[in-house]
Amino acid sequence: MTKRTGRYTFTFDSHPKILSFAAVAGPKESEGPLGECFDKIFYDPKVLMNSWEQAESEFQKEALSLAIKKAEAKGEDLDFIFAGDLLNQCISSSYGLKDFSIPYLGQYGACSTMAQSLIMGAITLESGVGRLCGCVTSSHFCSAERQYRFPLEYGGQRTPTAQWTVTGAGSCLLGYAKHPAPCITRACVGRILDAGVKDSANMGAAMAPAAAQTLCDFLSDSGQSVLDYDRIFTGDLGLVGSDILYTLCKEQGHDLRQNHSDCGLLIYDRQKQDVHAGGSGCGCAASVLCGHILPSMAAGKLKKILFIATGALMSSTSSQQGLSIPCIAHLVEISI
Amino acid sequence: MTKRTGRYTFTFDSHPKILSFAAVAGPKESEGPLGECFDKIFYDPKVLMNSWEQAESEFQKEALSLAIKKAEAKGEDLDFIFAGDLLNQCISSSYGLKDFSIPYLGQYGACSTMAQSLIMGAITLESGVGRLCGCVTSSHFCSAERQYRFPLEYGGQRTPTAQWTVTGAGSCLLGYAKHPAPCITRACVGRILDAGVKDSANMGAAMAPAAAQTLCDFLSDSGQSVLDYDRIFTGDLGLVGSDILYTLCKEQGHDLRQNHSDCGLLIYDRQKQDVHAGGSGCGCAASVLCGHILPSMAAGKLKKILFIATGALMSSTSSQQGLSIPCIAHLVEISI
Repeated sequence: MTKRTGRYTFTFDSHPKILSFAAVAGPKESEGPLGECFDKIFYDPKVLMNSWEQAESEFQKEALSLAIKKAEAKGEDLDFIFAGDLLNQCISSSYGLKDFSIPYLGQYGACSTMAQSLIMGAITLESGVGRLCGCVTSSHFCSAERQYRFPLEYGGQRTPTAQWTVTGAGSCLLGYAKHPAPCITRACVGRILDAGVKDSANMGAAMAPAAAQTLCDFLSDSGQSVLDYDRIFTGDLGLVGSDILYTLCKEQGHDLRQNHSDCGLLIYDRQKQDVHAGGSGCGCAASVLCGHILPSMAAGKLKKILFIATGALMSSTSSQQGLSIPCIAHLVEISI
Repeated sequence: MTKRTGRYTFTFDSHPKILSFAAVAGPKESEGPLGECFDKIFYDPKVLMNSWEQAESEFQKEALSLAIKKAEAKGEDLDFIFAGDLLNQCISSSYGLKDFSIPYLGQYGACSTMAQSLIMGAITLESGVGRLCGCVTSSHFCSAERQYRFPLEYGGQRTPTAQWTVTGAGSCLLGYAKHPAPCITRACVGRILDAGVKDSANMGAAMAPAAAQTLCDFLSDSGQSVLDYDRIFTGDLGLVGSDILYTLCKEQGHDLRQNHSDCGLLIYDRQKQDVHAGGSGCGCAASVLCGHILPSMAAGKLKKILFIATGALMSSTSSQQGLSIPCIAHLVEISI
């Protein structure tokens, strides 16, 4: 089959493009190094809603609305939405996006959801059953913290390997256009990898082996090398995970140190903002992709990149039952 | 675009086929009217595991293994798995399927997940980036009950509209074949509909409007009528939801009473098995599809059907916060 290269990598012949993108972030993110990049800041992280979960829904709603507006489209022009988030039963997506009344396909890839949604959107365009798709995801520090860890009021001490869940959302509209726009050229869907890590305060260590597996699969399948890319971005490995990724890739003959960036290390000033090992969450990769990476491509600063978002597929139930954390990473090649 | 008929319906020109299918069920399901239909019964609903969640993972693992075996395939032949379930962060899928080491794309459509996975699989085949895809989903009475409602030990009284979550899983392998096999010909992806129902013990009432919306969209788009199908199956509307579906469709000029069946009403003997309004859960639609509907098609008893699986996209958090229940229904047309 011509669309496949090797076992895990495939090509999009129809050149699905990212027609528009938007990033929405919270107050802490606005104070970080990318503060100026986001399309909208909600300075009230509760967005005047009754709960953190409903606030997170507002982030998704705003991100999709902005992407639709930027593409000079209307909601009814969209054939499908691919969306998901970290909350139980992905409620920030379903409640946030229900009023758009667009055919909806919920995705669950934990923090890899932005890459997964882009892949699903691109596959759908490639199949011809859709011409315009929305991809949306979000996370929220307050809703994630109380679901996965402790009530905020508890004020629990954070370990050095802990990461800070980004309050933010990102949204892309995928479709076809004659004008230049970032194009999804290839992708590699990850396999679940459980490296035996059980510490849910060390997501970077849990997810790094999955990122290494998907990246090495892709490089081996495609015959590309690390230096063929202007930059290789991971989603939220943070400081600990990035370091493990370098070691694991080095063992496979790939030296990443020169042109790798992790969205979780870009979004905050680790020292000044006291976020320990960096940022995390679906909204981390999504808001950095839509607020920083894609705008840099549109401005000609980056021509060819890899976007690898990683996800930890455990729940607080599986952690309480003593299970280790199965992880996944999905890779998207974007060129302009 | 030729693959689209109307606003919401699309056609698969490449004729993706359901090459094999398998259903796995628990002891209560084995005692129901379809008891003889399932490929495998786990008489111990805990499958010798340490928790209900891990047991549910075993159901998925077994369902996929059986479908792969029936297709005379190997795990490494599969390009992708589309899977999901009801548990927080879809852990029965991620833990159940991780050892297959097949590229994995987690789906979340609550009890509509089987239809959603079939649609995603068919779109992927249609796009040419995959040639063989697995679709898997499950539910488990014990893991669902304690997550959504009460601890089992509490012995809570159930209301008359309550449904019984099916302990079971279903799996399909989608691909291409020259020999006759059930073929996914068209599909209609649902839009989220929130009809304002807040009673999480009355899922049928919450989901029926979404089922009616998707079915009426499809009939309107395609120009088909109810009687063009040998049977129209819904996933788990139960007694209450089926009745509401009839009323809502009647208002749109479609009389469903003659050839509609609900998987939730087929799987149990409502009176004898004390399941109140019927069965429910991702595993309900999936196990009835793979244990009863597809075998009936393979045997020539049904030639052309609609499979409409419905999902309630709330969580216990959104219910506790007093929100109503947004629902969705995805429709798949299957012909042989």
